[in-house]
Amino acid sequence: MAESTPKTAITPTRAEDFAEWYQQVVRAADLAENSDVRGCMVIKPWGYGIWEKIQRQLDAMFKATGHKNAYFPLFIPLSYFEKEAAHVEGFAKECAVVTHHRLEVGADGKMRPAPSAELAEPLVVRPTSETIIGSTFARWVQSYRDLPILINQWANVVRWELRPRLFLRTAEFLWQEGHTAHESEREAIEEAVQMLEVYATFAREHLALPVYRGEKTASERFPGAVQTLCIEAMVQDRKAIQAGTSHFLGQNFAKASDIKFLARNGTQEHVWTTSWGTSTRLVGTVIMTHADDDGAVLPPRIAPAHVVVLPITSKEETRPAVLEAATALRDQIAAQRYADESIRVEIDQRDIGGGVKNWEWIKRGAPIRVELGPRDLAAGTVAISRRDQAAKEKTFRPSGEFVAQVPTILEDIQKNLYDRAEQLRDSNTLRIDSKEEFYDFFTPKNKDRPEIHGGFALAHWSGSPEVEAQIKEELKVTIRCIPFDQEVRDDQPGKCIISGEPSPRRVLFAKSY
Amino acid sequence: MAESTPKTAITPTRAEDFAEWYQQVVRAADLAENSDVRGCMVIKPWGYGIWEKIQRQLDAMFKATGHKNAYFPLFIPLSYFEKEAAHVEGFAKECAVVTHHRLEVGADGKMRPAPSAELAEPLVVRPTSETIIGSTFARWVQSYRDLPILINQWANVVRWELRPRLFLRTAEFLWQEGHTAHESEREAIEEAVQMLEVYATFAREHLALPVYRGEKTASERFPGAVQTLCIEAMVQDRKAIQAGTSHFLGQNFAKASDIKFLARNGTQEHVWTTSWGTSTRLVGTVIMTHADDDGAVLPPRIAPAHVVVLPITSKEETRPAVLEAATALRDQIAAQRYADESIRVEIDQRDIGGGVKNWEWIKRGAPIRVELGPRDLAAGTVAISRRDQAAKEKTFRPSGEFVAQVPTILEDIQKNLYDRAEQLRDSNTLRIDSKEEFYDFFTPKNKDRPEIHGGFALAHWSGSPEVEAQIKEELKVTIRCIPFDQEVRDDQPGKCIISGEPSPRRVLFAKSY
Repeated sequence: MAESTPKTAITPTRAEDFAEWYQQVVRAADLAENSDVRGCMVIKPWGYGIWEKIQRQLDAMFKATGHKNAYFPLFIPLSYFEKEAAHVEGFAKECAVVTHHRLEVGADGKMRPAPSAELAEPLVVRPTSETIIGSTFARWVQSYRDLPILINQWANVVRWELRPRLFLRTAEFLWQEGHTAHESEREAIEEAVQMLEVYATFAREHLALPVYRGEKTASERFPGAVQTLCIEAMVQDRKAIQAGTSHFLGQNFAKASDIKFLARNGTQEHVWTTSWGTSTRLVGTVIMTHADDDGAVLPPRIAPAHVVVLPITSKEETRPAVLEAATALRDQIAAQRYADESIRVEIDQRDIGGGVKNWEWIKRGAPIRVELGPRDLAAGTVAISRRDQAAKEKTFRPSGEFVAQVPTILEDIQKNLYDRAEQLRDSNTLRIDSKEEFYDFFTPKNKDRPEIHGGFALAHWSGSPEVEAQIKEELKVTIRCIPFDQEVRDDQPGKCIISGEPSPRRVLFAKSY
Repeated sequence: MAESTPKTAITPTRAEDFAEWYQQVVRAADLAENSDVRGCMVIKPWGYGIWEKIQRQLDAMFKATGHKNAYFPLFIPLSYFEKEAAHVEGFAKECAVVTHHRLEVGADGKMRPAPSAELAEPLVVRPTSETIIGSTFARWVQSYRDLPILINQWANVVRWELRPRLFLRTAEFLWQEGHTAHESEREAIEEAVQMLEVYATFAREHLALPVYRGEKTASERFPGAVQTLCIEAMVQDRKAIQAGTSHFLGQNFAKASDIKFLARNGTQEHVWTTSWGTSTRLVGTVIMTHADDDGAVLPPRIAPAHVVVLPITSKEETRPAVLEAATALRDQIAAQRYADESIRVEIDQRDIGGGVKNWEWIKRGAPIRVELGPRDLAAGTVAISRRDQAAKEKTFRPSGEFVAQVPTILEDIQKNLYDRAEQLRDSNTLRIDSKEEFYDFFTPKNKDRPEIHGGFALAHWSGSPEVEAQIKEELKVTIRCIPFDQEVRDDQPGKCIISGEPSPRRVLFAKSY
């Protein structure tokens, strides 16, 4: 090979500077880039391809649980937005506001918003849609026969971000938001729990993300919610990232939007609502969890291409035969199935150096790469590389044998990624029982690397908001959730590690994105 | 049946008041409704289901022609938007403008845009994305090796509308916009033509819409385009509706955004670009073309449900057996395939009157309804109704025989809808050779029904913009396109029907939406 191979394709490495490594992976893997609009990203085809897979698979799970898609306005009248006090307070600081509906040429010859076209009431670009959907549900619901309403929306939302970061925190992002209305409190709570389970299953089985499911404390709740449920994953710098939330909204939004129905007992009652969402943040979460120092490593379930065929066509005389064989190989692979879908296979015929080409696909994180050159052709073999193994590792196998094995290899990669992530998480999750140990766990040992710390701590907490605030203030550590799983929260009474007050169970503490 | 059956389910009928009939069908079919935000609609699940089918099928056609999806910012900085003079002039009057990024409580205790959070540069909510995508392409393109760039985006856009109408003209709408960049003029023109063909094929084969393909005159061009190609359909009031456009943009946007590349000959050149789009307007077009006085009539290819099973469960004692048989029937139907997809079948188990239920599905336009009651169960038959036939018509067939026939019946309905629409269009398209006849064709005969007129006129036009303006002024008739098909434009020299000047071919005149 003509190219010199760097030690790692990404500089800096994870160990050197995790934050910068992440930005470099997103760039090198061709996932997204900053746009000229502050805080708004351009999602490039390979990155959008991941989002398309996430969308399609989550959408099928929503439909299987009885939900239908619909679409609601991008703009929310300011007066609607104000209806729920906690809600508007939570979002007011990050709202993009439309005030004019026309441009005109000003005195200086430049375009400006036309003063004569100022809106009587400003419109908020939706940061989330509880209020506008609530006002619609109020029209849709008359009696208990109209319930439940089980709706999902795929949409863009805007939350003005001061410190944007590709995929993780952007002013505009893509997401889905489920909104449901129910006859009873119990049914609404069951819905919120069910959708959290859908997210947890999707995270585990599709994104290869081990997650803790749990409930947020009051201070971390969605503005306007009664309960916020969440799934929390650990990424490779041992911080937590929230990968999906499901809210039981009680009757808060029903009262704000006056969503009433004739109950079975003949009285007029307010409905009980839920909302739940996941976003393009999942793409960032997948990168931070699985990528390595050579670039992205994509779980096969959501990889835009499962297999990339790389014909080696450096010699003019063997080029046609190699391309022909590569095309035949592609078709054979595409005829196989994995996870109930046809295998997605791309052939990269670009006339650039084989080494450059190979490294591009390593950086992009394609699960399987197959090289095919004149010598392979003669031997009837192909050279296979798996993205979950070292970049240089190659296995030579008879072509037909490999084709039949593709689904198994993909399944194995998917499982490996999960196991690795679980291993990382479990070995960095500690039960901690003293304040001293807790502070030590979260305190960086090296002043130059303030981000390096212990990981997840499962510790006792009495429920005091003051203790929660103190830990956040002093350590930048928050309670990620009160875990659902008994094993995790360890239902043995104990004492709050800070205050010494009685505590019924452990909660999950971590630094987070 | 307890319900009295009205003569038609929709009032008024098409003949009585076409515009009002349309609104009533959209409402009765549960497709969409006006929101509280002026000009913005709520797309309800059944309407959104149609859009989902359109999306998925068009998306597959885009991918089959080598395009990939990506996503670009919702907001466009005003200075970018201004870069192409014709473009900004074309859209300035209908732009929603974001001027603030935070809300605060004002002196009156009410929320208002925070004066301290006024943006240095206002942001335009995209009415289309040529300028923001152009600025991105400028970063992506270095050399001819980076070309072509073949991108599509599924997104929402905003064009402030003074007279909004559900699906046809709304302030916010959903669409796809393709954006491509090429090395040569020829290649870009070929791309624009190719995508118009994709639209025409999709319209014919999926939406059952016969369309004329052609080129717009200069006055009807997209702001900033060199050529605008379009497909034009006739709806049932004989007006034209533009169902998709494809623009050859020359180097206009490339120069505005400075998209340059190193050409094969070693010089720096500007790329050649195209853009092309279709929107939720297609849903309105389908309704206006195929719906009847009983409600929507959906082409099977894009119907959210192909078949609706309606169990008749009025008698308590036969209810379980009927429901069981209905479920079994549903599963058998769902195992069949139509147009390369599993058949979409819904079972409506709601405990409401059979007549009401049946009429709901008639109004929604489900292609096939199947009733199944205790008597059918005993006889082993089902009662089948096709939405392209009279509402009361029913055929009784053995259940197994019907299941096997479902794909054929759907294919037949799809074909019937196309044939009917083509018949309507062809019998209302006239070659006209005199000014008198032309004015007569477009002049309403009944002053109370100003919308009733002849239809499409194929007439000679010399190319004079003055004649075009005169006809628009006097008759509200525009040139919909200069047709591509020789048969349609009748390549015989003639004389302009207004000016008498020589004309090389006929063009298509019509009133339009």
